[in-house]
Amino acid sequence: MPGADEVAAAVRAGDVRAAARLMRDLDDARPGAVEVMKLLYPHTGRAWVLGITGNPGSGKSTVVDALIAHYRKQHKRVGVVAVDPTSPFSGGAILGDRIRMQRHATDDGVFIRSLATRGHLGGLSRSTSDVVAVLDAMGFDLVLVETVGVGQDEIDVVAQAETAVVVTVPGLGDEIQAIKAGILEIADVLVVNKADREGADRTVRDLTTMLELRPADARTGAEPVEIIRTVATAGQGIGELAAACERHRARGRDGAAGSDDRRRRRAEAAVREHVLDAVRRTVDEALAARAELVDRVAARALDPYSAADELLTAITGARAPR
Amino acid sequence: MPGADEVAAAVRAGDVRAAARLMRDLDDARPGAVEVMKLLYPHTGRAWVLGITGNPGSGKSTVVDALIAHYRKQHKRVGVVAVDPTSPFSGGAILGDRIRMQRHATDDGVFIRSLATRGHLGGLSRSTSDVVAVLDAMGFDLVLVETVGVGQDEIDVVAQAETAVVVTVPGLGDEIQAIKAGILEIADVLVVNKADREGADRTVRDLTTMLELRPADARTGAEPVEIIRTVATAGQGIGELAAACERHRARGRDGAAGSDDRRRRRAEAAVREHVLDAVRRTVDEALAARAELVDRVAARALDPYSAADELLTAITGARAPR
Repeated sequence: MPGADEVAAAVRAGDVRAAARLMRDLDDARPGAVEVMKLLYPHTGRAWVLGITGNPGSGKSTVVDALIAHYRKQHKRVGVVAVDPTSPFSGGAILGDRIRMQRHATDDGVFIRSLATRGHLGGLSRSTSDVVAVLDAMGFDLVLVETVGVGQDEIDVVAQAETAVVVTVPGLGDEIQAIKAGILEIADVLVVNKADREGADRTVRDLTTMLELRPADARTGAEPVEIIRTVATAGQGIGELAAACERHRARGRDGAAGSDDRRRRRAEAAVREHVLDAVRRTVDEALAARAELVDRVAARALDPYSAADELLTAITGARAPR
Repeated sequence: MPGADEVAAAVRAGDVRAAARLMRDLDDARPGAVEVMKLLYPHTGRAWVLGITGNPGSGKSTVVDALIAHYRKQHKRVGVVAVDPTSPFSGGAILGDRIRMQRHATDDGVFIRSLATRGHLGGLSRSTSDVVAVLDAMGFDLVLVETVGVGQDEIDVVAQAETAVVVTVPGLGDEIQAIKAGILEIADVLVVNKADREGADRTVRDLTTMLELRPADARTGAEPVEIIRTVATAGQGIGELAAACERHRARGRDGAAGSDDRRRRRAEAAVREHVLDAVRRTVDEALAARAELVDRVAARALDPYSAADELLTAITGARAPR
């Protein structure tokens, strides 16, 4: 087995197999994988991490696809992290247009990694930031993180990106509009896709109103949020979208109000996730080792609160504060 | 401030104010709240916990509403836990038909508690099981837990219920169908709502096929999954739905294959969530106490993996295994 130094060097040289193996080792929490990440860390922070989220049916994957094509024309190398079970990038769409993605599959300048949303037990954010860091160290110019914009975890993942794009479409029902209100607050750039459809003007107006009503303490502070119209299937508006995202990025890197704050929050979230991830494993081991505790709770001979206290004592060596 | 004994007695007597205060105290992690829960625990396990999930637009809230009316006619007392931001029960629907719910608002036999999905930091399952336990101890016969069926947390919450109902409708797009495949595996009873719509037969056929393709190790084992057609706005099929749910419950309580297994998994999940919830608080306190660690990560002077190791050492007093 190669040492951490060798693996780190291979990843930095862009070795796709070494990178894929490292991602797998991180997922499996193999010893040594974290050592590689520590070596890679000084070589990260160069890639632009662009998060994209939106409801199923918004054509978000088509927007991602068009953005890849846009940046490939500029010879940028693009990494994609798909955490959306409906995305053709993750291969999760049962009847989706997976074929469209094939054109990137043989392109060396594009690396696609899908992450399952199930079974991550809250570790989705940690897994995503690991994969992003590996792609960053590999020298990808741009890392696109795509999630379905409904679950809390998925929204958090996009909120961690340097630039967060939220995709919507005209004519979704009221219930979906209500969900959208929840993801609106993380948007740096808003996209109205399928803008050739009836109702696009109204959607843009509605979004403008909602942005005006956005609380002043929203994460982007006083930063403007541009609303871009696209017809991603025809490539329309993709150049404008890329330009809007680049303006957002430039403002952040220029040290605009709030950008330091966001950098710090990203750092805090990363540290928290790594700690929680290690703790989750410790808790699962403790649960497996104390199976009789669970049996007693299942039989209602013990309450889950007291059982949790016992496990906490076993893990931390002292009763945790409650 | 009343002692734990007094609070527990008040909750058991059905005191709505005492119960609401206890739920708030649990959310705020106030000392003493867990002591009350330990006292209440022997008096739980009587309520039937029925989880209901489904995509936005499936009319799931109308199904919940109709089920409440159905069981109120039988003079059963019904608790509702709404963790769906689009649900009129949670008051989260911007333009939803909140008025319909009003008829239950003045009914003493109905208690509605909404939980925010944002800001729970993965503790949604813990919060829900706490609220369910309080309603159970209050003597509610039935506790309906309603979530939007997209995020992992929301699906997990319904999977924890004794009986899990998944609501769908004819004619949703392919992308939404793909999501549905993810929640299908937790279903004990499937509902095709708006069954007067075109395409209902096809949806029932598709679901039947998907059920046949369901892996043998799915959580319900070889248990049959009934598919019920409803038109919830007209109350059609609600009696049949209730009967199907009751058959599922009876099979579980009769000790059918898999029911012990599910009871144990529920117990394990409850203990795990209580432990993780306490640990999360400890981690947040440690993060606040070691702000300089985060500053160094934000400035890229320290990698988040090493920062996490330092925090873990501070929390557990020893280096956690990685």
